[in-house]
Amino acid sequence: MKKQIAIVGLGLIGGSLAMALRGFEDYEIVGVDRDGATLDFARAHAAADRVTEDAGAAIRTADVVVLCLHPRGIVDFLSAHRDHFKAGALVADVCGVKTAILEAAQVLPPEVDFIGCHPMAGKETSGIFHADPDLFRGAHFLLVPRPGNAPEHLELLGRIAAHIGCRDVVETTAERHDAIIAYTSQMMHVLAVAVCDDPDLFLCRGFEGGSFRDCTRVAALDVPLWTELFSMNAPALTRVIRTLEDNLRSYREVLEAGDPAALAQKLEHSAARKRRMNLE
Amino acid sequence: MKKQIAIVGLGLIGGSLAMALRGFEDYEIVGVDRDGATLDFARAHAAADRVTEDAGAAIRTADVVVLCLHPRGIVDFLSAHRDHFKAGALVADVCGVKTAILEAAQVLPPEVDFIGCHPMAGKETSGIFHADPDLFRGAHFLLVPRPGNAPEHLELLGRIAAHIGCRDVVETTAERHDAIIAYTSQMMHVLAVAVCDDPDLFLCRGFEGGSFRDCTRVAALDVPLWTELFSMNAPALTRVIRTLEDNLRSYREVLEAGDPAALAQKLEHSAARKRRMNLE
Repeated sequence: MKKQIAIVGLGLIGGSLAMALRGFEDYEIVGVDRDGATLDFARAHAAADRVTEDAGAAIRTADVVVLCLHPRGIVDFLSAHRDHFKAGALVADVCGVKTAILEAAQVLPPEVDFIGCHPMAGKETSGIFHADPDLFRGAHFLLVPRPGNAPEHLELLGRIAAHIGCRDVVETTAERHDAIIAYTSQMMHVLAVAVCDDPDLFLCRGFEGGSFRDCTRVAALDVPLWTELFSMNAPALTRVIRTLEDNLRSYREVLEAGDPAALAQKLEHSAARKRRMNLE
Repeated sequence: MKKQIAIVGLGLIGGSLAMALRGFEDYEIVGVDRDGATLDFARAHAAADRVTEDAGAAIRTADVVVLCLHPRGIVDFLSAHRDHFKAGALVADVCGVKTAILEAAQVLPPEVDFIGCHPMAGKETSGIFHADPDLFRGAHFLLVPRPGNAPEHLELLGRIAAHIGCRDVVETTAERHDAIIAYTSQMMHVLAVAVCDDPDLFLCRGFEGGSFRDCTRVAALDVPLWTELFSMNAPALTRVIRTLEDNLRSYREVLEAGDPAALAQKLEHSAARKRRMNLE
């Protein structure tokens, strides 16, 4: 009998992951969802080797379970199904906050091996209907191990990351993950929505270029998901927003001072940081 | 004898424009630059039908002159060469501010027809070495006519915009152009550099996703160019930065208040604006 990977939650990420995992070693990919339209779509598009709405049954036999639910859904699932995982199973999640998830994973019995994951990929759309097996191509696969994780499970996740096309695996701690993600991911989404709050938004049709399209791309976000992600990481997120407010104000003040030399010096400083970021 | 279009300034935009214009109707494309390496590159890559460093001679015989210099360079060129343009010539520019340029164009004699243009395309690199004949593909071509412009010249610019691959031609006034561009272009660049001023920038390597790459892409900007663009539109730019500071603070405050329902409502409002922007 083949080993099994159960993907719990076939949304954009779970659906894409199931598709990307097809053919991974000698594993059967089992897709789990409660939504009928999602299951129909998954079946019609062969998103997994097999799909089911019975999460309890699926995780009882799965060697690997990947939780692709919203953060609170993961917390609830771990609590509700703590005793249903197979002994020795690897359980992982893929959501964008890690401290709260690792805390929640403490409900699991010791014979279940939980590892936090976060493949840094996404789209401004939701649901399996937008899933894409190439979604993870070139993305960083962030890995948040716990003390006592089985080395073979960490290695397995590394092979999974490679199979789905991630560029590398970056190991970190939950605290560091959440602090940096507040800056590199969450703040970008706050920025995108804040830019769209400008009263002149609808006047600018026909006047947008690549930088505007890029910056606001993620603004049409999945509200329940991002409400949870932001709320569960609010202290780190508010800190980086405050820093950005300061840095924007600083640019505004040098513009208001009408001193092109000072503006050029400031721009040179920032642009050099960006170039250094790219080069190192 | 073929009609002539002189492209003055073979940087990223001028070089790309010259390449994109090759084969346009029955026009000879003449590239003009003072930099030896730029001229060598333009010759080696056949960026234009002919290149020269003699701007005065080129514009004396050109039916169309497109000024692809930095904004202050355009102002200076118009002043220095006001009497060297061919009678009846169309003179256009392609820079990202329009009020100051149209004011500067008032030095021209009445038999020279000046029209402000701004094809909304660019890259985070400079110089003909990064030029790309497809740079304008899908971009809006903003057109700022003046009273008394020859209708055949406006039509000619429309055909030029189509030939280089622009998606449409958007007519506007200089004041409206500068007010909206402050938001859709200049502020995106201020944002990108301000994000890179975060002290944690270099800690975030390995943790960046698409939204971070997109938002900061333009931060490695051409400092002298953007110093001029920002300075020549400072009142409008400081106004939109202030609005963004307010909108960011508003998000920060709802996060600090720890009220997920209020956060969700706010995100729904912004995301709906973005979706409406896309759909209409």
